[in-house]
Amino acid sequence: MSVITIERKILEKNDEVAGRNRALFAEHDLFVLNVVSSPGSGKTSILERTIEQLRGKVSLAVIEGDVQTDIDAQRVARLGVPAVQIVTRGGCHLEANLVHEALKNIELQNIRILIIENVGNLVCPANYDLGEAMKVVVISTTEGDDKPLKYPNMFCFASVLLINKIDLLPYVNCNIEQLRLNALSINPNLRVFETSCTTGVGIQTWCEWLLQHTTHPE
Amino acid sequence: MSVITIERKILEKNDEVAGRNRALFAEHDLFVLNVVSSPGSGKTSILERTIEQLRGKVSLAVIEGDVQTDIDAQRVARLGVPAVQIVTRGGCHLEANLVHEALKNIELQNIRILIIENVGNLVCPANYDLGEAMKVVVISTTEGDDKPLKYPNMFCFASVLLINKIDLLPYVNCNIEQLRLNALSINPNLRVFETSCTTGVGIQTWCEWLLQHTTHPE
Repeated sequence: MSVITIERKILEKNDEVAGRNRALFAEHDLFVLNVVSSPGSGKTSILERTIEQLRGKVSLAVIEGDVQTDIDAQRVARLGVPAVQIVTRGGCHLEANLVHEALKNIELQNIRILIIENVGNLVCPANYDLGEAMKVVVISTTEGDDKPLKYPNMFCFASVLLINKIDLLPYVNCNIEQLRLNALSINPNLRVFETSCTTGVGIQTWCEWLLQHTTHPE
Repeated sequence: MSVITIERKILEKNDEVAGRNRALFAEHDLFVLNVVSSPGSGKTSILERTIEQLRGKVSLAVIEGDVQTDIDAQRVARLGVPAVQIVTRGGCHLEANLVHEALKNIELQNIRILIIENVGNLVCPANYDLGEAMKVVVISTTEGDDKPLKYPNMFCFASVLLINKIDLLPYVNCNIEQLRLNALSINPNLRVFETSCTTGVGIQTWCEWLLQHTTHPE
C-alpha cells in the first residue's frame, strides 16, 4: 500500500524528534508512559485510578491525545494533576513533535512520571515513537480474546499489557487465558496485569509495579 | 500535522478508484455496505447474525479487511457465504484499490448485497471511500457514550449507526440515550439501531430495514 512508503519519511523525522524528547526526559529523570488502546478500552479510567493510587507517593503529569474534544484532559485535571490536551483534529495518532510542543506547558523539573494517553487507535500509534520509556497497551475483555493476533504490532512494541474490564468477564465471550496466551505469543516479554476500574481489582498491583519500576527500572 | 497534507494525494487517487468501484457496483445492481468500528465492537458478529437472518432472502458476499490473520473471513465462510480476505499487513484502513482487487474473486452477477468489513479503527477508515452505498458504524455500549464526540468524523460520514452489545448495559457506564444524542448531534441523519449479537435483540429490525433499503433505496 502506498501509505507505507510515503510514511517512511514521516517516521524518520518523527524518530528524530522522539530522540530529542527522550534526551529531555532523561535530563529531568522523568519516567514516561505511552498508553495506547482502541477507543473505549478504559485508558482514561485507568489513568484516573492510577493517579488516585499514586497521589502523595510520586509527582505525575498527563498529556492527553484526542482527535477532538478535551473531555479526557478535563477528567484528569479534576484530580489535581497537571494535564495538557493535544487535539489532533482528525489525526489518528500522536507524533513526537506534538508531544514536544505540549511539554512546554509542563514544569518537567517537578514531575517524576509523565503519562501520555494516545488517541484511541490500536493500529497507527504503534509506529510512532514519542520518546517514551515504555508503551502500555490496554485491551478490554469486551473486545474478545483474538485481538492480539489481529492487531499484532501494538502488542509487539508494548512492554506492558493491561487487560481491563475483567468485571465483565461473566457476560462476554472472552477467554482471558487465551487472550493472555495470544498476547504472549506475539510478545513473550509483555508484563501482563488484569484490572477493573469499576471494582478497582488489580489497580494497586499495577501501580505498585509502576512505582517500583520507576524507581528501579529493569 | 504533516500526514494530513501528504495524504491528500493518496486520497485523491483513492477517490478515483472508489468511483470506478461505484460504477461497477451500479452496473451489477449491487448494494454495498462499508462496516466500520473500533476493534472488538462486534462487526464480525453482526455480520454473522445478518447473514443468518438474510439467508434465503437475498444473495450476499463479504470482503473482510484485517491488519493480520484471516480469522474473520473464516468465520464468515463457515456460513456458506462467498468471503474474500484482504490482509493489509499493518495498514490501518482499507483503500479502494484493495477492494477493487478483491472484487476479482467474487462473481458479482450472482450477488445483491456486498458487505465490506473494514479494519478495526474508528479514525482512519472515515477518510477512505471504497465506492460503497453507505458506511455503517458500529459502536458497543462498553466503549462509553462519549465516543461520537471524541471520534466525530466516522459518525459524520456514516448513514447507519448500530449500537451493539446492549445486553451489557446493566454492567457498564453508558447512558444509551446520551450516546444516541451525542451521535445525532454530530449527524442528525444517522439511522440508529440497537443490537445484541448475544441475545439477538434488534438484529431482525436491522436486517428488515437493510433488505427494504436494498430493494427501495431512499
